Amino acid sequence: MEETFVPFEGIKNDLRGRLRCYKQDWTGGIRAGYRILAPTTYIFFASAIPVISFGEQLERDTEGILTAVQTLASTALCGIIHSIIGGQPLLILGVAEPTVIMYTFMFNFAKERSGLGRNLFLAWSGWVCVWTSFLLILLAILGACSIINRFTRVAGELFGLLIAMLFMQQAIKGLVDEFRIPSGENTSLTEFIPSWRFANGMFALVLSFGLLLTALKSRKARSWRYGSGSLRSLIADYGVPLMVLVWTAVSYIPSGSVPKGIPRRLFSPNPWSPGAYENWTVVKDMLDVPVVYIIGAFIPATMIAVLYYFDHSVASQLAQQKEFNLRKPSSYHYDLLLLGFLTLLCGLLGIPPSNGVIPQSPMHTKSLATLKHQLLRNRLVQAARGSIRKNASLGQLYGNMQEAYHQMQTPLVYQEASIQGLRELKESTIQAATSTGQMDAPVDETLFDVEKEIDDLLPVEVKEQRVSNLLQATMVGGCVAAMPLLKKIPTSVLWGYFAFMAIENLPGNQFWERILLLFTAPSRRYKVLEEYHATFVETVPFKSIATFTIFQTIYLLTCFGLTWIPIAGVMFPMLIMLLVPVRQYFLPKFFKGAHLQDLDAAEYEEAPALPFTLATEAELGAGASLAGEGEIFDEVITRSRGEFKHVSSPKITSSTATPSNDRKSFPSPRASYSPRVGEIKGERSPRSSGRGPHSPRTPQSHSPKSEGKSSNLGKSPLNTETK
Amino acid sequence: MEETFVPFEGIKNDLRGRLRCYKQDWTGGIRAGYRILAPTTYIFFASAIPVISFGEQLERDTEGILTAVQTLASTALCGIIHSIIGGQPLLILGVAEPTVIMYTFMFNFAKERSGLGRNLFLAWSGWVCVWTSFLLILLAILGACSIINRFTRVAGELFGLLIAMLFMQQAIKGLVDEFRIPSGENTSLTEFIPSWRFANGMFALVLSFGLLLTALKSRKARSWRYGSGSLRSLIADYGVPLMVLVWTAVSYIPSGSVPKGIPRRLFSPNPWSPGAYENWTVVKDMLDVPVVYIIGAFIPATMIAVLYYFDHSVASQLAQQKEFNLRKPSSYHYDLLLLGFLTLLCGLLGIPPSNGVIPQSPMHTKSLATLKHQLLRNRLVQAARGSIRKNASLGQLYGNMQEAYHQMQTPLVYQEASIQGLRELKESTIQAATSTGQMDAPVDETLFDVEKEIDDLLPVEVKEQRVSNLLQATMVGGCVAAMPLLKKIPTSVLWGYFAFMAIENLPGNQFWERILLLFTAPSRRYKVLEEYHATFVETVPFKSIATFTIFQTIYLLTCFGLTWIPIAGVMFPMLIMLLVPVRQYFLPKFFKGAHLQDLDAAEYEEAPALPFTLATEAELGAGASLAGEGEIFDEVITRSRGEFKHVSSPKITSSTATPSNDRKSFPSPRASYSPRVGEIKGERSPRSSGRGPHSPRTPQSHSPKSEGKSSNLGKSPLNTETK
Repeated sequence: MEETFVPFEGIKNDLRGRLRCYKQDWTGGIRAGYRILAPTTYIFFASAIPVISFGEQLERDTEGILTAVQTLASTALCGIIHSIIGGQPLLILGVAEPTVIMYTFMFNFAKERSGLGRNLFLAWSGWVCVWTSFLLILLAILGACSIINRFTRVAGELFGLLIAMLFMQQAIKGLVDEFRIPSGENTSLTEFIPSWRFANGMFALVLSFGLLLTALKSRKARSWRYGSGSLRSLIADYGVPLMVLVWTAVSYIPSGSVPKGIPRRLFSPNPWSPGAYENWTVVKDMLDVPVVYIIGAFIPATMIAVLYYFDHSVASQLAQQKEFNLRKPSSYHYDLLLLGFLTLLCGLLGIPPSNGVIPQSPMHTKSLATLKHQLLRNRLVQAARGSIRKNASLGQLYGNMQEAYHQMQTPLVYQEASIQGLRELKESTIQAATSTGQMDAPVDETLFDVEKEIDDLLPVEVKEQRVSNLLQATMVGGCVAAMPLLKKIPTSVLWGYFAFMAIENLPGNQFWERILLLFTAPSRRYKVLEEYHATFVETVPFKSIATFTIFQTIYLLTCFGLTWIPIAGVMFPMLIMLLVPVRQYFLPKFFKGAHLQDLDAAEYEEAPALPFTLATEAELGAGASLAGEGEIFDEVITRSRGEFKHVSSPKITSSTATPSNDRKSFPSPRASYSPRVGEIKGERSPRSSGRGPHSPRTPQSHSPKSEGKSSNLGKSPLNTETK
Repeated sequence: MEETFVPFEGIKNDLRGRLRCYKQDWTGGIRAGYRILAPTTYIFFASAIPVISFGEQLERDTEGILTAVQTLASTALCGIIHSIIGGQPLLILGVAEPTVIMYTFMFNFAKERSGLGRNLFLAWSGWVCVWTSFLLILLAILGACSIINRFTRVAGELFGLLIAMLFMQQAIKGLVDEFRIPSGENTSLTEFIPSWRFANGMFALVLSFGLLLTALKSRKARSWRYGSGSLRSLIADYGVPLMVLVWTAVSYIPSGSVPKGIPRRLFSPNPWSPGAYENWTVVKDMLDVPVVYIIGAFIPATMIAVLYYFDHSVASQLAQQKEFNLRKPSSYHYDLLLLGFLTLLCGLLGIPPSNGVIPQSPMHTKSLATLKHQLLRNRLVQAARGSIRKNASLGQLYGNMQEAYHQMQTPLVYQEASIQGLRELKESTIQAATSTGQMDAPVDETLFDVEKEIDDLLPVEVKEQRVSNLLQATMVGGCVAAMPLLKKIPTSVLWGYFAFMAIENLPGNQFWERILLLFTAPSRRYKVLEEYHATFVETVPFKSIATFTIFQTIYLLTCFGLTWIPIAGVMFPMLIMLLVPVRQYFLPKFFKGAHLQDLDAAEYEEAPALPFTLATEAELGAGASLAGEGEIFDEVITRSRGEFKHVSSPKITSSTATPSNDRKSFPSPRASYSPRVGEIKGERSPRSSGRGPHSPRTPQSHSPKSEGKSSNLGKSPLNTETK
């Protein structure tokens, strides 16, 4: 993205880019068929559960003026509109914690003013939204999002980890509260006598840890050893919602003398209760607000505008990280404009506005990557099996697979790069076959293990479409009607789910992985190199990694501490925005340029929006019956937020092999005496030329196939450290 | 062992064999230094906790006549005597569940007889012990243990799994009871009102699952990636007792309004309470028992004698499985004789007798194998590092290591076989070095990764000595005095520990692993072959494995069902002994001889007791400072109950390699295109010649280095199944 501050230029660019693929956004989603339901359900739960919980929090804090009904309505309304006319359909909108904090602050302010009071709170907050909307639209028009690429990985990942900490904090706080009497409740109820409170707390521990552990386990079902492939896929795709159901069912097991209030459950009002619909007509009260407060509303509005500008853009950015190899263009400017209008709409309806949410937005992209992988995989497996049936030679087999792969691609300019993996595999296998004289012999599955090879070679790709977002937003809307059912969920299951969301999003966050690296025993660091890992592990000295990480950790803890300060806490995004100058002017004084580049690539110039040729995407094997095995892919996806490398076992050894000194470095325990000779990745372009800061979306360098062993590892600074 | 039924012959043989290594049993243990404390503590907890729990069960069932004080006293007394003058010091003695069941039955019988009554119960059970003792001594003299080798793997592993099921059943029953009012308690206490009972039950769930999960995790600490090596070793060695402490501490966190009785804790009397020492003078009452009951005592005595004969021998057998590569002779006859005298002693003292226990006995051997491994490893690492410092060549390096290895061995005839691994490694490395012309160049750690290579090459060996058994028995005795402290342990932690013991002993049980194999998806079976696995996986068709396993499972469930029948339940060992004729005459009709041999090797002839040369064992590096890394070894030890094979990555490829058809079979996902050519294991003797049914203790064929890939795998029946 160029830093263009010409008014309307950014919006125009975004619109142009997204309009070209608008039709494909729908057809692609629809063609994926029933499989789109897996990511949809996954994101629906990730979106709805926190929104319900924030609604409950708001209900307590605003004395019942705003409830989960309003937060759900806002999330659904904004989500549906954004998924249809928004720019980046991967972005998930929702009412977020900072909004709740701001609204609580505004309520506390309003209810003590004689001119406003409890009754005019919603009308006044409507004015806040009007001003916020105005500011957001102004920012969008002026191209403020052009500086989005100054939010480097450091800022984004720090923010991501901060959100994870806030989720975890909420989970712990929620659990502790299960032992206490909730504020505003009738303390004389049976369930609040000490014994039942203690029982409730212990039951909550069982339910929340049960949910957390089983949900985490179920996400890994694809690599389980037991059960059929389709069962494992089903559990991996729908395990988390299923576990919410299971543990809710468990919560109904105790009966007899156990009072109805144990365990505690959601207490949102039904949408048809009085009080749940007062807000919708708030627009007619707005002119009753005294002028001084209308003008004064500008002050909280600036804070919310800055918050939304940052939050919305970073959520969008995290959903579009380059490791996902997205093909369709970004749309920061236009999306901010739309957010302005959505905020206005919410303000006039008297519901809290939604914005782009973390971690749901990156979770959405990840789950769509799994989907795309399954579709691609089925097609390639079919092609390969077809060739084998026809007794094709290795050469023909690869020809057929390449063709099948081409057919499936959204025809974009960068597609050539993404078949790098396929080509690499081809070369290596052919070399193997040539040396043994099997080149023209018919292939069978013994020479070419279809499913596993294809898993290895597929790059990360995302099914970019609008259907999943639309469906999940609609389902969130359905929650309003399903309130009586939702109320059966114990709050403790919610806390378990919060912890799950915090933990689920840690792997792949390079900041988090660097923290783990600090605690890794020096003698075990070779294990990191054996797995998928980011470039910096090999190129940056351990000392620099440690210093950088400790600095970032202190910064994170400062931000976290700031959220505890009652009102100033809302300004914590400011501290993260401060990271932009810190990164640009302060850090380069302490770290070598090359190291900093690997730890936190700053792409102050981005490639222009990708041209999108309007050829229709070839139909994908939506109905193909093969269930994905894909645990290899699971690993790729989980770790895929970093540019990774994978140290493989030697793929093939040539007869002219000479062992180099390299093999000494970090041999895997079981292959320690296999000299890493003659790795035939010769044609692979070296990292530095394959990926520059100016071609951030060139996918080949981030594909799981970039096995950057070569001589690099032997001189790895990490290696030196462990001697 | 020959089937010799000449009176006293077996006992004489046993005594002769064990006396030769008696001195070394002590010196070897003492030389291991403080490290012996790790297996000691581990076994002490495994031994004491169930005994305490059985004591509590007995207290309820005998109306307080027998308590945990008596069961602990019996376990300590018999354990100390056995560890000093017993034959096989790996065997752990303790009061077991069957004994408790028998005593309960006897109490219920006695208290209703007018001639006996509650008061003469202990005196009468003294007579039962007299008769039992007589029968056991008779069996020992007549050489009944000669048929011990007819208890094949089928019987032993079925019994092991049955014990695991009983432990798990006890854990579940205990947890369920936490929600109920314990029998014989004052129901009007605060902690028994419904709310506190519910709270107690939930708290129990938290504590027991907390203990179970953390204990299981801590056992794997050696392979953790985080923390220093010594910390990880410490946690792996002492984690389980530590977790008992931690969760006991957690149980004290709730305070304030929570009544003292929550969570429930052990309720054994202190040894100085009246009632805890009534029993010791029971011998003076024994002549008060009417003659008819003295004679009648013969009936329960036969049942107990059969039970003990079986239980004691199988526990001893499981502790001496051939995969442990034990060097010192077995001692079934003499140990049974000693058990006879111990039973008499316990009977006269009025305490329930102890016998050899499962799973503690095999747990003991396993933990000693880890110890021996650490000692060996430290010495070899020192030797290798020394050579590298002196710029020795590869040839010299191996010479030095071989020498160091020889020095450390208990000098036994079989030692040559056990250095097979060392020799194999040497050959392969030298071949690698020769082909690259590095043979005479000085070695450095880059060519020879000392720690990992040594982990790979060490065979499983056990530190056979008497010190750990004596210490743990003494510590059990100390529990009697420490009763006030023990009473602080919540019962729920006990139930968690029971579940831990059941689960901890599953891996390595081939029966269990075959059950898992039945549930493994066909497409995932290759993963079994990638790990350490038993011979049968490669040689027996899947269908035969399945039939055999299902038959065994039905048999197991029948045995388990039998334990539920009130009095007949005691006879369940009979059903397992019935497996001997079933295995010998019935199974061969349904399974091919070769398959049956691999699934359940029946060695109806055993090699004579091993000659033991009285040269002193070279001093081991007890004080060596290197903490074991050893996760590779963890795997070996865990799976080590089966004869296993390990599919390694190709160790080295020769320049004359020709790809054979083999590589198709089960390529590991990451090395699928590495043709498994030129594996240089040529000198390895084929399985059939290396291990015959007549040489059960030849260690080389069961060492972790026996990488039985070769062409076998290509034709593996499992492979055929998955096509």
